[in-house]
Amino acid sequence: MADATAHGTGAEGPGTEGSGASPAPEGLSRRGLLGLFGAGAAGAVVGAAGGAGVAMAATGALGGAEASAAAYDFHGVHQAGITTPAQDRLHFAAFDVSDTLDRTGLVELLTDWTDAAARLTQGLEVEDGGAVGGSDVAPPADTGEALGLPAAGLTITFGFGPTLFTDAAGVDRFGLAARRPPALEALPRFQGDALKPEWTGGDLCVQACADDPQVAVHAIRNLSRIAFGRASLRWSQLGFGRTSSTSTAQSTPRNLFGFKDGTANVKAEEREALAEHVWVDDGDEPAWLAGGSYLVARKIRMVIESWDRVQLGEQERLVGRTKGEGAPLSGGTESTAPDFEAEGATGAPLIPTDAHVRLAHASANGGVRMLRRGYNFVDGNDELGRLDAGLFFLSFQRSPEQFVTVQRSLAADALNEYLKHVGSAIFAVPGGIRPGEHVGQALFT
Amino acid sequence: MADATAHGTGAEGPGTEGSGASPAPEGLSRRGLLGLFGAGAAGAVVGAAGGAGVAMAATGALGGAEASAAAYDFHGVHQAGITTPAQDRLHFAAFDVSDTLDRTGLVELLTDWTDAAARLTQGLEVEDGGAVGGSDVAPPADTGEALGLPAAGLTITFGFGPTLFTDAAGVDRFGLAARRPPALEALPRFQGDALKPEWTGGDLCVQACADDPQVAVHAIRNLSRIAFGRASLRWSQLGFGRTSSTSTAQSTPRNLFGFKDGTANVKAEEREALAEHVWVDDGDEPAWLAGGSYLVARKIRMVIESWDRVQLGEQERLVGRTKGEGAPLSGGTESTAPDFEAEGATGAPLIPTDAHVRLAHASANGGVRMLRRGYNFVDGNDELGRLDAGLFFLSFQRSPEQFVTVQRSLAADALNEYLKHVGSAIFAVPGGIRPGEHVGQALFT
Repeated sequence: MADATAHGTGAEGPGTEGSGASPAPEGLSRRGLLGLFGAGAAGAVVGAAGGAGVAMAATGALGGAEASAAAYDFHGVHQAGITTPAQDRLHFAAFDVSDTLDRTGLVELLTDWTDAAARLTQGLEVEDGGAVGGSDVAPPADTGEALGLPAAGLTITFGFGPTLFTDAAGVDRFGLAARRPPALEALPRFQGDALKPEWTGGDLCVQACADDPQVAVHAIRNLSRIAFGRASLRWSQLGFGRTSSTSTAQSTPRNLFGFKDGTANVKAEEREALAEHVWVDDGDEPAWLAGGSYLVARKIRMVIESWDRVQLGEQERLVGRTKGEGAPLSGGTESTAPDFEAEGATGAPLIPTDAHVRLAHASANGGVRMLRRGYNFVDGNDELGRLDAGLFFLSFQRSPEQFVTVQRSLAADALNEYLKHVGSAIFAVPGGIRPGEHVGQALFT
Repeated sequence: MADATAHGTGAEGPGTEGSGASPAPEGLSRRGLLGLFGAGAAGAVVGAAGGAGVAMAATGALGGAEASAAAYDFHGVHQAGITTPAQDRLHFAAFDVSDTLDRTGLVELLTDWTDAAARLTQGLEVEDGGAVGGSDVAPPADTGEALGLPAAGLTITFGFGPTLFTDAAGVDRFGLAARRPPALEALPRFQGDALKPEWTGGDLCVQACADDPQVAVHAIRNLSRIAFGRASLRWSQLGFGRTSSTSTAQSTPRNLFGFKDGTANVKAEEREALAEHVWVDDGDEPAWLAGGSYLVARKIRMVIESWDRVQLGEQERLVGRTKGEGAPLSGGTESTAPDFEAEGATGAPLIPTDAHVRLAHASANGGVRMLRRGYNFVDGNDELGRLDAGLFFLSFQRSPEQFVTVQRSLAADALNEYLKHVGSAIFAVPGGIRPGEHVGQALFT
C-alpha cells in the first residue's frame, strides 16, 4: 500500500543489538518527508547512521513539534525501557491471562507480543501494510492510528507478575510454580496503603514509553488486541510527564508537588551502580532472570489541593530540598549531596528528620538505591472537584527488597499526609531478548 | 529567584495583539538555553521576532524533544485556542460556580482568571516568582510544576454555559438571565445519547491546549486553585492527540478508528468561511458575544474492540474514505472533494448513503460547516478489559444550530454502532480580550 509509509513498510532498521538511538538526519526535514508522504511514495526512509546498534525510523506525516524520530533497538542484553533515557509519555498496562490458556498458549502469546513489539518499536506496523490490509474475512492487522508517525522513541518492556506462577487460588496454571523467583510475591502491606483491587496486581505487564502518547497508546492497544481471548487488560495508566531522568544528559523534571524529582536516581551512565542495584546478576537466583530486573508500580494519588495550601518553607522542609533549584536544605545546588548532619543555628538538623529526601536516601536504607521511572498523571477529578492527580511510580531494582526497605523507611515521611497509595503491582522483568527468541524464553526452557 | 527562569519572571512578551507565534529563534539551540538555565541565569530570554503580534517565550529546562517555545498572544480580536493551529495536547475543564458567589464575585473570578491566563500563556508563572514565593502565612501563588518549561504554545479559552445565566432551578444568580443568548441552551437529546451527568454541562469552561501536557495541566490546576471557594471542577478531560487540523499548514492527524479526521475542517486561513461559520458577527444577537463563538463539547466513547474486528473495506464504507490516504471513496486524494453522485458498476453510490463523510458533509446539511478541534483520549479501561477510549469532540460554530443540524443528520450514520456519546456541554465563548479587560466584560456592562 503506497500510503502506509512510516508505520507502514517492511523495511527493517539496520541495527538489531545494543541500545543506541538517533534523531532524524539533519539534512532531511520533516517537511521533506511530509512531501514524500503526501506524494504517496512507498517505503520508509530508513538509513544507517553512526555505526552499529543505531536504528533509525522514518519521520512520518502527522508529527507535530514533538515528534521524535528516535528508534531504540528492541533486542539487546537488557530489555529497553529501563535505562533508556526516560521518554516523555507512558501507557502502562497490566494483563490477566485467561484461565483457558495453557502453557503452550502462553508461549504463543509471548511470541506474538515479542514479534509485534520488535516491529512497533522501530516505527513499523504490527504487520507490513497491516493498517490497510486484511481480507474479505480478516480485519486489518494494525489499528492504524500511528500510521505515518515516527517511532517516537517507543520502548516496550514486558514483566511477569507473581500470579503468573501461582494464581490467587494457588493453582500452577502453566507449570511455572517451581521457577518462581522466591522474591517475586505481592508486596507487603505498607502503612497508609489504600490499595484498590482495580489498580493492583496483574499476571503480565507491558510498559510502553514514547515521546508521542499516540504511539504509546497504539502499542498498548495493539498488544491488547493481539492478546484477545488469551489475556485481557486488568488495569492501565497513562502518564503525561516523566518525573525521573535515567540519563545524566536529561534535565530533572518536576512532579505535581512542583518539586524536582529523582535527582539522585540511578542513571544509565552509572554502570557499576546498575550492576549493583538494578540488574539481576548471573549469580542471582533464578538463573532465567539474569539480565532482568524487578519492576514495582505504585499508583500514588497526591492530595494536591491540600498541598497547594502549604507555605513554601514548610513544603521545602517536608521534601528536604528547595523548590526552585532543588538543592538539599543543607546547601549547595541540585547536584550537591545532602548533608544530613548539618545543623542550623538552633542545633536542629537543616534537613528535618522526617524529610522525604532523608528517609528515601541510600544512607538511611543501608545503601539501597533504585532506578525510578515514574510519570505524572491526571485522571479527571473526583466528585468534590479535586483533580484525581498524582505520581505513577515505577522503579526497577535487582530485588524487591530494595523497594520494601525504602518504602518502610518512608512510613515516617512527613509527605505522607499528602499522598495516598491506591494501586500496587510487582513484576519480574526478564533480561533482553535475542532475535528469534520471545521475551522470557529462558523461563520456559 | 534565580532559578525560576522560563515560567519564572515578569518579563512580558512584546506582542499584545494579533495571533502570531514563533518557534525559538534558530540561532538559539535548546541546549544553549539549557546552559543558561543550568547556570542559574535570571530572566526569561524574550525577544521580538518578525514584526507585530509575535511574542516569544524562553525555552526552558525540562523540555524534551517535544518542548515548543511558541507563545501565542493572549489578547486579540478573538480568543486564542480556536483558529490557533491545533496544539497536540488538551486539558479541558468544566466548572460550576459556587452558590455563595454573587455577580461581583463572579466578575472578580473572571478578572483573576484573565490575569492569570494572560501570564500563563506567555510561559510565565501566575505571579512573578510565584512558585517560590508566598510568605509565612501564604502558600506559593504558583504550583510550580511548569517551572522552567516554555510556553509550549499554550492557549486558554474561556466559555460560559447556559446555567451561568439561569441555573437548573431557574434562578438568575448573577442578574444575567436577560442577556442569555437565546441559542445558548442545553443541547437537545440526540438519538443514541447515553450521557452521564458527571461528564455533562457546566457553568464555565476552560480549554487549555498546549504542545506539552504538563503545561496544559499546570494551567487548569492553577485556574482551579484560583477559583477555590468560588467555582469548582465539575468534570475535566485530558486529550493526548489532536484529531483535527485548524491550519492548512498542519497535516491531518488520525483518530482512534485509525482514520484521518477533519479533512474538510474550517481552517484559520479561510477568513470568509470563519466569518460565515465560526465567529458571532457584530450584527448577530446578543451584541456582547460579537467576535465570539459557540463551543460544543462531546465525550464520545469509541467501541474500538468491535471496530478492530471490522474488515478494511467495511471500515472504509462506514467512513466513506480510504484508510491509508483518506481519499473519498469516489476517488482522488485526501484533498479531493467527495463526489456523492458517483456510482460504481452496480449503480450503487461509491460513497454509501449512510457513510459518515456523506452525512457530516456541508452538502447534506444545508451548507453548514464547523471548526472542529477534538482530541483522542484514553481513560484506562473498563472491568471487561476494554480500553475506555474515544474522541473528545470539540467544535466551534457561529450558532449551536450548526452542530444540532449535523448531529441530527448523523442519526443515520453507519458509524454509530461503534460510538457512544457519554458527555455533552455547550458554552458561549466571548470574543477576544483587550489588555485591562476581563473575559466576557461586555456581558457585564
